[in-house]
Amino acid sequence: MRTSEFILAKRNGEAHTREELEDFIQGYLSGDIPDYQVSAWLMAVCWRGMSDQETIDLTNILACSGHMLDLHDLPHTVDKHSTGGVGDKTSLVLAPLLASSGAKVAKMSGRGLGHTGGTIDKLESIPGFSAILSESAFLRQIHEIGVVVSGQSTELAPAEGLLYALRNATATVQSLPLIASSIMSKKLAGGAGSLVLDVKVGSGAFLKTREEARRLGTTMMRIGREAGQEVRIVLSNMEEPLGYTVGNTLEVIEAMQCLKGAGPRDLTELCITLAEEVLSATGLPHERGEIEKRLTDGRAYDTFERWISAQGGKLEALETLELAPDRAVRRAPKAGFVSEVEALQIGQAVNTLGGGRSKKGDVIDLGVGIELHAKIGTEVERGDPLATIYHRSGKGLEDAIALFDRAITIAESATPPPLILESLPQIADG
Amino acid sequence: MRTSEFILAKRNGEAHTREELEDFIQGYLSGDIPDYQVSAWLMAVCWRGMSDQETIDLTNILACSGHMLDLHDLPHTVDKHSTGGVGDKTSLVLAPLLASSGAKVAKMSGRGLGHTGGTIDKLESIPGFSAILSESAFLRQIHEIGVVVSGQSTELAPAEGLLYALRNATATVQSLPLIASSIMSKKLAGGAGSLVLDVKVGSGAFLKTREEARRLGTTMMRIGREAGQEVRIVLSNMEEPLGYTVGNTLEVIEAMQCLKGAGPRDLTELCITLAEEVLSATGLPHERGEIEKRLTDGRAYDTFERWISAQGGKLEALETLELAPDRAVRRAPKAGFVSEVEALQIGQAVNTLGGGRSKKGDVIDLGVGIELHAKIGTEVERGDPLATIYHRSGKGLEDAIALFDRAITIAESATPPPLILESLPQIADG
Repeated sequence: MRTSEFILAKRNGEAHTREELEDFIQGYLSGDIPDYQVSAWLMAVCWRGMSDQETIDLTNILACSGHMLDLHDLPHTVDKHSTGGVGDKTSLVLAPLLASSGAKVAKMSGRGLGHTGGTIDKLESIPGFSAILSESAFLRQIHEIGVVVSGQSTELAPAEGLLYALRNATATVQSLPLIASSIMSKKLAGGAGSLVLDVKVGSGAFLKTREEARRLGTTMMRIGREAGQEVRIVLSNMEEPLGYTVGNTLEVIEAMQCLKGAGPRDLTELCITLAEEVLSATGLPHERGEIEKRLTDGRAYDTFERWISAQGGKLEALETLELAPDRAVRRAPKAGFVSEVEALQIGQAVNTLGGGRSKKGDVIDLGVGIELHAKIGTEVERGDPLATIYHRSGKGLEDAIALFDRAITIAESATPPPLILESLPQIADG
Repeated sequence: MRTSEFILAKRNGEAHTREELEDFIQGYLSGDIPDYQVSAWLMAVCWRGMSDQETIDLTNILACSGHMLDLHDLPHTVDKHSTGGVGDKTSLVLAPLLASSGAKVAKMSGRGLGHTGGTIDKLESIPGFSAILSESAFLRQIHEIGVVVSGQSTELAPAEGLLYALRNATATVQSLPLIASSIMSKKLAGGAGSLVLDVKVGSGAFLKTREEARRLGTTMMRIGREAGQEVRIVLSNMEEPLGYTVGNTLEVIEAMQCLKGAGPRDLTELCITLAEEVLSATGLPHERGEIEKRLTDGRAYDTFERWISAQGGKLEALETLELAPDRAVRRAPKAGFVSEVEALQIGQAVNTLGGGRSKKGDVIDLGVGIELHAKIGTEVERGDPLATIYHRSGKGLEDAIALFDRAITIAESATPPPLILESLPQIADG
């Protein structure tokens, strides 16, 4: 089949066979099929969609396009992924929490892009920490410490990496089958036996509706099931930022508080729910009270320190992480209840301060950020502080303040939204 | 506006401003915007369409992307375009017919691609004929002979040429606004004051329905009106081939018969209708009977000879044009009325014999082809000849026969379809 006919078939809404998809992706990797044919096809996929079978096939082809980590000799290997939110420091808490519960956490993470942050950026707020590990060092650390977080290896699912860069440049990121195959191909190549996916829903997330999130989650579950990976899906709210902090260093500090049992209610609840789900998938004990106890009795934080130390992080620096030196406090213009804290605009405000990237490779300022003093449902008097903005010599401050002020609404009444929307039921065998 | 945001806007169904379109096309021409972003945008246009204003803007931007012919000092300049059919030798007849009626015919034509033939290929069946003319030779010939047909100059509307090559490789040819802007940008750059467009409708044409053809025609009229070019639109049937011949040399022979007043009824009728439309647009006399008389009194054929001779064609060769030496006759398997002669499959059969291109640059055999002895509505006895296939040593013959046999249906009754479907009414000023 000629490539233009392959594209035409998708344009006409037809389904590709596994063999056709394989020829296409192989042709792309080998350079026989140029970028411009692939990007036209990507837009046709955004238009016409893909069947579950096509999505499963594409995911497997992408996963097999390079090296695959083999973790079969390890018990209870787990991985976690979030579809991206604002203030989402869940991985920093969940990874050591799971390791302290007996799971082996083998996680590869990305850097932040657009209005959402990335786990690797956050970890680099810790002096000495390195996310660049050889495969042997990666494997040794899972054995010895039980938790390792590295940057995405370019050897795993290289075809996915190529496709992702092309999607980013051609407005074809937003597509359920493309998102599902992108996430799951990396997770299959990463080799963990169980996986929990935190699918964010709301104005601050890629997915705006619960229905879309359910469809994406179900598709990813099916892909995992076909490939022998146990996948659990939690839908969580992303109308307002998670926790009280947005910005790399600020989020590490808040994550450490959570690991010591003193974190904000929403972040703690989400971490416990995700831990419960993925531990149950491995067959390890997963009683909520037990998981919660590891946050209060110091075991999770101990594991965090061992992990950070193993990757070169200086523990003595943890208590004195460096924030941007300048502060601006925003105050309530009137009394009432905070009814909106729009995550998207808060994320953009931190970007504006220099804390995020508009394109890959941008250098970012880890110390800037926003610390909220009120969230949805908080009652405030006129003049009460709503947030502290951490900036560097006023860089981007004016725009950040404008974005922040637009993000906040104070109304006569407001109730906090539910954080955990639902855990998707397991799909039946076969 | 970043290019990815421009693509996203179209993906979301938004309209581009003229300035945005200009930046995009300029960026493409200068090499700042890569092919892969343009092809994703093209697929988004296929998906979401373009408004009339966007289509007009794009056409003008493409038309102005290179040199534009200036024919303002000539009266009654005309051009003609067909959206592509099987057996369509109309231009060979119409160009000298119009010139013999006082119009100045300045036409640039393409080569055949896919199942449809091209005027330049047909003309090259005449020994010595050259379609490669300098601009000064092109202009001199219009002055002196009143008719000139050259290959498409790459200096006219170069951005259109780039876009077309990309569309061909990415399954984005089929899109009303892209087809309209592609045709009209070249016609505007070609500089003729009046234009007649023969929009083919039916299974053998790009456009399958009359509704689509009407929309395309109306859009092209609007584009012409905005740019000061008088455009007339005729919708004609392309269920069966036009005339009785398909194949380059065969079609030249049939066109010459028509120019001598002895052509097939359908071809003659279409040429007279197109001539009447475009002559009326120029303000020249356009009475049907007068036009028809030029075919029977020798004036049209005389102009044809002067034209061919001016472009190097040997007139003494016209009576002995060389056809492929081998013949196969297909006969009616039963008695009845021919009810289908599917143009698409007849065109493909001639391709298979070597008479057409599957990609640009393919060398073709001008002498092969199919001469029909029956068309829709013809009554046949069992064993009557349906067609003669002109082939070269059996090359492609088996497949061509299979295609031919599938193209023909004999039923208990059949009536010839109407050839001219309609002439679109003029759109009101403003």
